[in-house]
Amino acid sequence: MNAPRIQQSKVAVVGAGSWGTTFAKVLCDAGSDVTIWARRGEVADEIRVAKRNSQYLPGVNLPKSLKASTDIAEVLRGARLVFLAVPSQTLRQNLLDIEPYLDRSSVLVSLVKGVERSTTMRMSEVMYDTLDLDPERIAVVSGPNIAMEIAKEQPTGAVASCASIEVAREVAQACSAPYFRTYVNTDVVGTELGGVLKNLIALAIGIVDGVGYGENTKASIITRGLAEMTQFAVSQGSEASTLSGLAGLGDLIATCQSPLSRNNTAGRLIGQGFSLEETREQMQQTAEGITSVAPILEIAAANNIVMPIVQQVQMVLEGEMSPENLGPHLATEDGIPKRELVLGRESRSVWRRLFGRRKGSA
Amino acid sequence: MNAPRIQQSKVAVVGAGSWGTTFAKVLCDAGSDVTIWARRGEVADEIRVAKRNSQYLPGVNLPKSLKASTDIAEVLRGARLVFLAVPSQTLRQNLLDIEPYLDRSSVLVSLVKGVERSTTMRMSEVMYDTLDLDPERIAVVSGPNIAMEIAKEQPTGAVASCASIEVAREVAQACSAPYFRTYVNTDVVGTELGGVLKNLIALAIGIVDGVGYGENTKASIITRGLAEMTQFAVSQGSEASTLSGLAGLGDLIATCQSPLSRNNTAGRLIGQGFSLEETREQMQQTAEGITSVAPILEIAAANNIVMPIVQQVQMVLEGEMSPENLGPHLATEDGIPKRELVLGRESRSVWRRLFGRRKGSA
Repeated sequence: MNAPRIQQSKVAVVGAGSWGTTFAKVLCDAGSDVTIWARRGEVADEIRVAKRNSQYLPGVNLPKSLKASTDIAEVLRGARLVFLAVPSQTLRQNLLDIEPYLDRSSVLVSLVKGVERSTTMRMSEVMYDTLDLDPERIAVVSGPNIAMEIAKEQPTGAVASCASIEVAREVAQACSAPYFRTYVNTDVVGTELGGVLKNLIALAIGIVDGVGYGENTKASIITRGLAEMTQFAVSQGSEASTLSGLAGLGDLIATCQSPLSRNNTAGRLIGQGFSLEETREQMQQTAEGITSVAPILEIAAANNIVMPIVQQVQMVLEGEMSPENLGPHLATEDGIPKRELVLGRESRSVWRRLFGRRKGSA
Repeated sequence: MNAPRIQQSKVAVVGAGSWGTTFAKVLCDAGSDVTIWARRGEVADEIRVAKRNSQYLPGVNLPKSLKASTDIAEVLRGARLVFLAVPSQTLRQNLLDIEPYLDRSSVLVSLVKGVERSTTMRMSEVMYDTLDLDPERIAVVSGPNIAMEIAKEQPTGAVASCASIEVAREVAQACSAPYFRTYVNTDVVGTELGGVLKNLIALAIGIVDGVGYGENTKASIITRGLAEMTQFAVSQGSEASTLSGLAGLGDLIATCQSPLSRNNTAGRLIGQGFSLEETREQMQQTAEGITSVAPILEIAAANNIVMPIVQQVQMVLEGEMSPENLGPHLATEDGIPKRELVLGRESRSVWRRLFGRRKGSA
């Protein structure tokens, strides 16, 4: 059981929800030998026997070669790449659960977007914090990736990111199916922050959608919102260009356009006049973006970064601004037209830079 | 009649279509003294008497203060700012028509997006070429500006651009209404190219919409498309940041999302399987983007700029590629995942740089 032989092509997917199952299909279609881990026996059984996951991915035929199991040791054995597709708030516990069975030379790839609420850590930070891995063994995949569209094999782009460009390439190659093209970069921070920050802008889009505003307003908010996202990410040590790519702009656009996005829906209800409390009750859950507004604005303030759209979202959420006043009318109340400010140049950091220093160092 | 006294607040709008009429309303709501020129007497009469333009802007109440006339001399007299809102292919003739009545110290502001087909000149180049004006007297306004949404006073952002930042500010101030916020820059080339190049990407979006692809595909095309637009514009002397702003990304998003866009519609018909010829007949006009594909690709080739999405659009238009193969699967057929390439660094120019040298110089 210990030190199993690593087969280059064997990969594991941890989590059999809609995203994990979809990604397992991508990996199979890219030619890998894939086993998916499901917590519940009936889900693993259905994938193994009927090649379906009718609860999480109804109507989609899964590849003949896809294997499934509830036995994490079996799933992880000999897997060079381990893709994690569990809910963001359970990642830490899941990592602790799988640690005993993890080969020490395997690479962990986060497919999860979001931050851990209790610590405000990004997913790669949680991985680093929990398992004490080398940065070369932590990767993330992100982009404009609505699961059901990928499951239907609609052409999609994504980014694989790792401190090591070789590992990023290995990850990208493992998930490059005919309908799924993966690019690489080494900017893990920016790649992850894109998937976090877009939710705040999607809230703003939902709010003006609820008010009834059209494409001009939304396009202005997305444009200015991307500038805010970029300035913030750069202040955390990421490259501006990452935010202009698939994990930033791409994900932002897909999320803002998707009527199924929880952040979009939450914003729309608020824009229609429901209070934050009513919206929470109505949706029976809190949208990721709503939870992130306050911590992101705190970090922004500490870095002297102005985020007018996110600030306006906060004011609307707190009932201090009417939804119809949210718009691209940004903080230039002196009447003098301002130069368009698009990309920030700041590069200071308040958050620990994950790959800038090693654990235990000063 | 000669050398009339310039009143700071008097402005003229040439052209009473939906865009000219909408912009005249913005200027009135910004506090200017506005007269609009209409070619046809009944349009001028209706605006003057009924404060409506029912043919081009049905259902919209125009400001009480808006004046209208068919007498170009009267409209231009004493106007410091002259906003041009005529069809792109008629701009040259319109300029020749108004030249005798134009005060030599007034500033001409193009509201027109597009290139002159016979010369492939941008609108500011046509203005420069026709009237021999100083660059400080040529400005443009662009952005995500769907006329009907602005007429309904939905919050909108735009950019005013002029070689002189002071003149850009003056233009921006003249059109900053409560619902219309105008920023400034000095990058006329980039501001104009955004409004030209977005049509090519909107064609691609229309095509995949016609095929039935969803948000992942479209978000990837917009993201990669903006990178292509930026590389092209930078090669023509513009700033990359202009393309990341309202006149680039903003206009691109609004156009790609608007179901009324002609380029979007043309693409959709082609994506559904109609030929280029059938699409032209069905729409009874040629979409701007279709005319631009070949000249833009020629200039790109001369600058060694690869534009995979625009190339794919050309192949689809010419029947050499099936619409369902258009996607973010860009030119990396060797199987090695590529670094995500977002912003071009090239800055050579083949087009005459309008504001780089003066007419008559080498």
